[in-house]
Amino acid sequence: MLTEIITIGDEILIGQIVDTNSAWIAQKLNENGIRVKQISSVSDDRDHILEALNAASKRVDLIIITGGLGPTKDDITKKTLAGYFNVGFRRDEQALQNVRRILSSHNRPILEINESQADVPENCIVLQNKNGTAPGMWFEHRSKVYVSMPGVPFEMMYLTEEEVIPRLKAHFNLSAIVHHNILTAGIGESFLAETIAPVENSLPSYIKLAYLPKLGQVRLRLSAYGEDENRLKKEVEYYSNQIVALVPEFVVVNEDKPLEKAVLDYMHAEGLKLSVAESCTGGYLSHLLTQHPGSSEVFLGGAISYSNELKKSMLGVSEDTLTAFGAVSEETVKEMAEGALKNYKSDYSISVSGIAGPGGGTPEKPTGTVWIAVANKNRVLTRKFQFPGRRLQNIERAAVNALVLLLKLIREEPA
Amino acid sequence: MLTEIITIGDEILIGQIVDTNSAWIAQKLNENGIRVKQISSVSDDRDHILEALNAASKRVDLIIITGGLGPTKDDITKKTLAGYFNVGFRRDEQALQNVRRILSSHNRPILEINESQADVPENCIVLQNKNGTAPGMWFEHRSKVYVSMPGVPFEMMYLTEEEVIPRLKAHFNLSAIVHHNILTAGIGESFLAETIAPVENSLPSYIKLAYLPKLGQVRLRLSAYGEDENRLKKEVEYYSNQIVALVPEFVVVNEDKPLEKAVLDYMHAEGLKLSVAESCTGGYLSHLLTQHPGSSEVFLGGAISYSNELKKSMLGVSEDTLTAFGAVSEETVKEMAEGALKNYKSDYSISVSGIAGPGGGTPEKPTGTVWIAVANKNRVLTRKFQFPGRRLQNIERAAVNALVLLLKLIREEPA
Repeated sequence: MLTEIITIGDEILIGQIVDTNSAWIAQKLNENGIRVKQISSVSDDRDHILEALNAASKRVDLIIITGGLGPTKDDITKKTLAGYFNVGFRRDEQALQNVRRILSSHNRPILEINESQADVPENCIVLQNKNGTAPGMWFEHRSKVYVSMPGVPFEMMYLTEEEVIPRLKAHFNLSAIVHHNILTAGIGESFLAETIAPVENSLPSYIKLAYLPKLGQVRLRLSAYGEDENRLKKEVEYYSNQIVALVPEFVVVNEDKPLEKAVLDYMHAEGLKLSVAESCTGGYLSHLLTQHPGSSEVFLGGAISYSNELKKSMLGVSEDTLTAFGAVSEETVKEMAEGALKNYKSDYSISVSGIAGPGGGTPEKPTGTVWIAVANKNRVLTRKFQFPGRRLQNIERAAVNALVLLLKLIREEPA
Repeated sequence: MLTEIITIGDEILIGQIVDTNSAWIAQKLNENGIRVKQISSVSDDRDHILEALNAASKRVDLIIITGGLGPTKDDITKKTLAGYFNVGFRRDEQALQNVRRILSSHNRPILEINESQADVPENCIVLQNKNGTAPGMWFEHRSKVYVSMPGVPFEMMYLTEEEVIPRLKAHFNLSAIVHHNILTAGIGESFLAETIAPVENSLPSYIKLAYLPKLGQVRLRLSAYGEDENRLKKEVEYYSNQIVALVPEFVVVNEDKPLEKAVLDYMHAEGLKLSVAESCTGGYLSHLLTQHPGSSEVFLGGAISYSNELKKSMLGVSEDTLTAFGAVSEETVKEMAEGALKNYKSDYSISVSGIAGPGGGTPEKPTGTVWIAVANKNRVLTRKFQFPGRRLQNIERAAVNALVLLLKLIREEPA
């Protein structure tokens, strides 16, 4: 059961927005045993959309389209679909009520272009969109299914979960896909591959191993495809255990969970609290943690001590330390971590100070120099990194490595 | 001059990673007058890659491929390209030196699979990759250009800027593209479209207007295509001024700049300093600001006061206020903003407290309730929002609206 996702919109093609919808949809489909064969982003252009629909209909059984359903002139998906299916339009009464309800609740006038959002191609089943004025649409045509949804993420998410997935389950006889992820840190992709080659070479044809390197980590993904989900799960577990046994010291998280979620879950289970003192990561580390529901059970908060003044006043870093060693130094991050632990009354703390770039580097401390400390009441671990990337990558690498270092301390030295 | 970006990798198709490379490449190409016609993400599968290459070669003149160049088994781009061009391999001496240099600098052993990264299809020009072991490759074939780069973002970025763009400029006779962006807030897409319809209807055929709604904002984008860049710029300026004149009170930023960068630039020009007190945004607001180089000129830092304890100890929010009104209240965000202003000695401060969800809502304060305050020494502005989205969207909306409110205060009430 293969699918193609087609995203429509010039904003993607000029790089003004990153297409996050496709990844989200792909994830949801995979969880339900539907493989995505291709993702195509095409322009707001009738002929180009038609070409993409034709090409996709030859490759796959299910075509999911997002974008181009707004009320304005540049939104042409609906008309193009009607042309593709060679049908006219009808005004959907329920969709019209929905448009009126939403606009009234925002105290906005109801214009004719709003009402026309309830016009849909005659052959579609309307998927009511609780979160927006553009309805989702489900088409069945020459034994293929086409689904069209708005590109606004939370509207698309609502429609996917509440309308599309249940209908797909009812419509198709879905096969199983089982994924297992192993997150490693501190080992290069090639060396990892060389080390686990015996397991990789012994995998049956329906189990695939992928290497996903990212910012000093390599995520290994085993994917098994077949009919019997329970059997696939057992097989994947067997092979993943074999892999872990070959590189135990480099495995950071042995499940499909982001690193920061693994940290939160581990600390939550142990009843531990965390605070932070962020300088060069500038809130990113905290954001990584707090994007997860329930993070407040573990994460108390902390300081974004971007300026030296705030390193002193918020965390008690001494003037002498800053003068003698500078803000980016082992001594400073140590005092920052200790200050956070004490002032914010947590069991563990993380501090980060570095030169994210592009400017600010010196011969002794070039751009990309980052000091990280993690502390509990007994011990402070520090580590220096020299990252090669751009500003945003350096910030991300610093946050990730801070979490890896924290896990190391927690496992070695329970509070 | 049209191009297609093909990203190769199952990790994109199962939704494990978001394809940020394509947006970045598209932006760079657009700046240089190259339009992206389509972005296609395909699986690590030889036949599928060949099919995508064939389809793209019919649509466009330039095909940019990322991904699948790692040293491991699942990386098949290079072999597939050699098959597509029907050529053999040669080992590139410079690329080999580069592999050895990089691995030695990481103190890693040099394995045969590493050295084989220097093997390239015979017909390619090697683009030396300073940041990684996989070389970039440039092919010319039947009057089309193919470029293959690693999927690792900072390697791809280096190659694009240093190698690919200069070669494209030399190879093609590029036409001009001019974009202008107008960011609006507080006005619905339909009403905006209705209001500016007179301008939209008067646009010449080579200037397009797009509406990009996102989290309570609508970005308007005028794009002009042609030969004479200066003339296009003048025309775009003329039409954008006409648009702004129709909705002046809703225009937040009248250039191609993210909201937070506009805030930073404005404050920097005025010599103003900013601090924050983040609760439900949990560091995201600070991250938005600090992702930009030079943000430290304006942004001093602040508190991530996730717990009530830290709202009291870091910001001086009173126990009475928290008891009487709760953490998500006008009174609390007011005290948070005033506390940040005082403790962190800034000219302006922002505070945010809300229920990001999914849990934590009550009948009086449902999930999505967010209070925001912005303050200077003379005045505190507060505003309550009721966001409809999921956790991450609520966090993003809160941060964006906080910045919009800050701009309002700065413009109305200079410090």
